[in-house]
Amino acid sequence: MRQTNHFEITANNIRAAAQRIAGQVIRTPLIPCDSISKSLGCELFFKAENLQHEGSFKIRGATNAVNSLVERMGKKELAQRGVITHSSGNHAAALARAATLKGIDAKIVMPQNSSRRKFNAVRQYGIEPILCEPSSEARQLKADEIISQTGSKMIHAYDHSDIIAGQGTVGLEILEQITNADVILTPVGGGGLLAGILLAVKNADPQIQIFGCEPTLADDAHRSLHAGTLQKPTRYDSVADGLRTCLGDLTFPIIQHFVDEILLVDEPEILAATRTIATHGRLVAEPSGAVTLAAACRYRQKFQEQRVVAVISGGNLDMGECTLGKSR
Amino acid sequence: MRQTNHFEITANNIRAAAQRIAGQVIRTPLIPCDSISKSLGCELFFKAENLQHEGSFKIRGATNAVNSLVERMGKKELAQRGVITHSSGNHAAALARAATLKGIDAKIVMPQNSSRRKFNAVRQYGIEPILCEPSSEARQLKADEIISQTGSKMIHAYDHSDIIAGQGTVGLEILEQITNADVILTPVGGGGLLAGILLAVKNADPQIQIFGCEPTLADDAHRSLHAGTLQKPTRYDSVADGLRTCLGDLTFPIIQHFVDEILLVDEPEILAATRTIATHGRLVAEPSGAVTLAAACRYRQKFQEQRVVAVISGGNLDMGECTLGKSR
Repeated sequence: MRQTNHFEITANNIRAAAQRIAGQVIRTPLIPCDSISKSLGCELFFKAENLQHEGSFKIRGATNAVNSLVERMGKKELAQRGVITHSSGNHAAALARAATLKGIDAKIVMPQNSSRRKFNAVRQYGIEPILCEPSSEARQLKADEIISQTGSKMIHAYDHSDIIAGQGTVGLEILEQITNADVILTPVGGGGLLAGILLAVKNADPQIQIFGCEPTLADDAHRSLHAGTLQKPTRYDSVADGLRTCLGDLTFPIIQHFVDEILLVDEPEILAATRTIATHGRLVAEPSGAVTLAAACRYRQKFQEQRVVAVISGGNLDMGECTLGKSR
Repeated sequence: MRQTNHFEITANNIRAAAQRIAGQVIRTPLIPCDSISKSLGCELFFKAENLQHEGSFKIRGATNAVNSLVERMGKKELAQRGVITHSSGNHAAALARAATLKGIDAKIVMPQNSSRRKFNAVRQYGIEPILCEPSSEARQLKADEIISQTGSKMIHAYDHSDIIAGQGTVGLEILEQITNADVILTPVGGGGLLAGILLAVKNADPQIQIFGCEPTLADDAHRSLHAGTLQKPTRYDSVADGLRTCLGDLTFPIIQHFVDEILLVDEPEILAATRTIATHGRLVAEPSGAVTLAAACRYRQKFQEQRVVAVISGGNLDMGECTLGKSR
């Protein structure tokens, strides 16, 4: 096992991130699930990041990135410039929250076809999303335009060292919450969460196997590892909408160096896992967060008798609107 | 505030229960929910007993009752007699699990119209439910018949001191998990959970207000408190099926002595709260477990600026069957 790495992000950065975000993020529970464990022949635990603020792990990286910028630049300077990102997903609300907590202005560029839930999650912080066309190029172009006018600091959703270090705190918590874990399963989209967990866990205990889990319809990480070079997605229609993105220049080499394997799962398996997490885990997962249970089911022969942690990365299912009723 | 009580169950019994069941039940997380808090104008936390083994708090009382019987009678004697209960709900699987863990035979009498999910939850422990007619009388008659043949020890779902003490451990955990709670909201059906939490919390901190939450369609606790005598339910059709039962001879006087108020909620409010817990809390609650959020919404004026803990007592929603797919 390779225990050293030459990446700019170290286990120390992740420990520093954990201190930097303490009290501003939830230390999410690690929840055993007996009935699924019995069915699969392993000992299964959910790391429930769906119970995180704003319903996703993204708050960890965003909070670390904003707090870290405040430390480096000073609050006054950063408040003048503000922070900016582009995202159609959970990173949008995460950055909105992290910046608001520090009194920093955040500009959030969102594709105009983002879901109403995602727009509302940003608006609740009093921030009006800046709309753009849905393509990656249009998103970046719009962000660059604003940066050139305002000097705002870009906080990319995953290809950013403070983001990766923040997401890695999930791995530190798992190590504290369970002894003798054999396997950690984590979703892989842009790779920030997987890279962070790899850096946190493989440095502490290289015996723990770590698998990235990915939809077959969005298998760019799988193909990238086999090709040895960064491969682009070929389609964007997996139900796991958070995993349609490409690995980044920072996340790819970390994953390449440390990951045990990328496990692919099919769409019906992802939907079945989403449902099983609700029925047997009593947790609401979004499909992107349920790929880990889908992989635990599909590859169950690999995990017999093992202690398996499945990270549920988020729980922002679009279930339509709901209200809190009237006060009497 | 009245701090003393003359009941046979004391805070010491609840502390002993906590030690007796440690390691066999989950210390369920207390989860803050910012978005609902903001909407309601309070600071809301869920005590997530839906994440308990078998998806309900019932495992606490059942485990305490079985372990306590083993201590008092000796394992050999109890194994010869076995334990028995009647239940259409979560207590059935809870007793099946608690007895199985100790190697004790459990006889579970269930109304023949119980849901498939509830039957399956018992069968997973290799125990075949004993069917009876749905009425309370038929359930008790069938149980009495078996007791007279076998000498099995009856463990009633709520009107049993070890059950109440076990459920009270929810209250102890809340006290450990949050400082300066102002309010605890808990569902009330038979009253075991409410009575246990009252005994645990009011003895430690009588300033904390504790409200039982009940469907208007199953308002027997509310009527009993106002009448000063135990009132029977008049109908059995609330969607909160776990709360259709009557208070017991043990639970009623404890509730009468300590509770601040019983709050009533209507059926649409219960369904809306079930949905809100899924959307904003990312937790699956059964309607009986969602009455507490329903009350937090309906009576929000009461709770402005307060720190409110809503106990989600269970998460066994009937969502149809689901499978774990095929292994590859």
